[in-house]
Amino acid sequence: MERRDEILHIAGQLFSQRGYHATSMRELARHLNLQGGSLYAHIASKEELLIEVVRQAAARFLGVLEGLEGDPVAKIRALVRGHLRVIAEELPRATVFFHEWKHLSPPFLKEARALRRRYEEGVQGVVQEGVDKGVFRTESARLATLFLLSALNWTYQWYRPEGPLSLEEISEQYARLVLRALGVWEGGEDGEA
Amino acid sequence: MERRDEILHIAGQLFSQRGYHATSMRELARHLNLQGGSLYAHIASKEELLIEVVRQAAARFLGVLEGLEGDPVAKIRALVRGHLRVIAEELPRATVFFHEWKHLSPPFLKEARALRRRYEEGVQGVVQEGVDKGVFRTESARLATLFLLSALNWTYQWYRPEGPLSLEEISEQYARLVLRALGVWEGGEDGEA
Repeated sequence: MERRDEILHIAGQLFSQRGYHATSMRELARHLNLQGGSLYAHIASKEELLIEVVRQAAARFLGVLEGLEGDPVAKIRALVRGHLRVIAEELPRATVFFHEWKHLSPPFLKEARALRRRYEEGVQGVVQEGVDKGVFRTESARLATLFLLSALNWTYQWYRPEGPLSLEEISEQYARLVLRALGVWEGGEDGEA
Repeated sequence: MERRDEILHIAGQLFSQRGYHATSMRELARHLNLQGGSLYAHIASKEELLIEVVRQAAARFLGVLEGLEGDPVAKIRALVRGHLRVIAEELPRATVFFHEWKHLSPPFLKEARALRRRYEEGVQGVVQEGVDKGVFRTESARLATLFLLSALNWTYQWYRPEGPLSLEEISEQYARLVLRALGVWEGGEDGEA
């Protein structure tokens, strides 16, 4: 692993475990077996680390959106699976993306908000497409989007690789719960839900 | 407000905004216009404040469970409404209950886990009751419970009193989304969903 990647990796872990404010550069250097000063050869500030971790997590989530294809039901299935896989594979970074971004100051705060919004709007686009095609039924595509993203995001709190259900099983059942909430019934409109 | 209540109120706000580790007793004293030392006339430690805030939030959530009555559909509706109301009214305390509890050490950590589990089990009991009565359909009452609690808990991230939908409207639509996910269709089995 490149030195910079390693620094970002450890920073993500510390920020997610202890919180951004409670993580000092000295502590970070200690975890990397570096002198405090030599850390600054690689990065300009603690805040630069935070925005970098947020960017990395955002890239993973936005990558899920880019890979979606097929009808709205297939897209929601792939979205649920992809979103949960990012959380499972990137638990510390996802936690920072979900929480610690708030401690950024402008202009980084604005950038983080824009990245989060881009993902939300992408998800809402899928929901809206389903509504427009008459496949999903919901009073408000906006609230339905917040509902499904809430159900997905919170999994970082309870998902554990050693849990009783595999990620694949959780994804399957979660997709079915989300699709039902969107009005797609088993054996419903699309004949495969 | 009693002095101790005021201390807990401010502690909840600081812990939720900056995180438990990043909040110092000195800072807390400053927000209360107290000398650092005189804080200790009211409380023994920073950790005592954390467990107290967790207990207060837990009492509010458990109070929702105790107030449930009627059939499983009515219970889920009241649960969604009650849970969202606690979050809206107690945003800082709920945030601490959702996140900062992890920074407790034993035996407080164990107590916080038990309180959170008691609530989860209560919710799962309602889901299971609906399954047993043939009103809800779900592959796993456990996963459906985690799904609905995830959807509810995450609202503390985006709910704002000044938002476009009132708490009442959000609760109504959320309850319908949750009930659909549990297999209760509009005009479905219970004739009123």
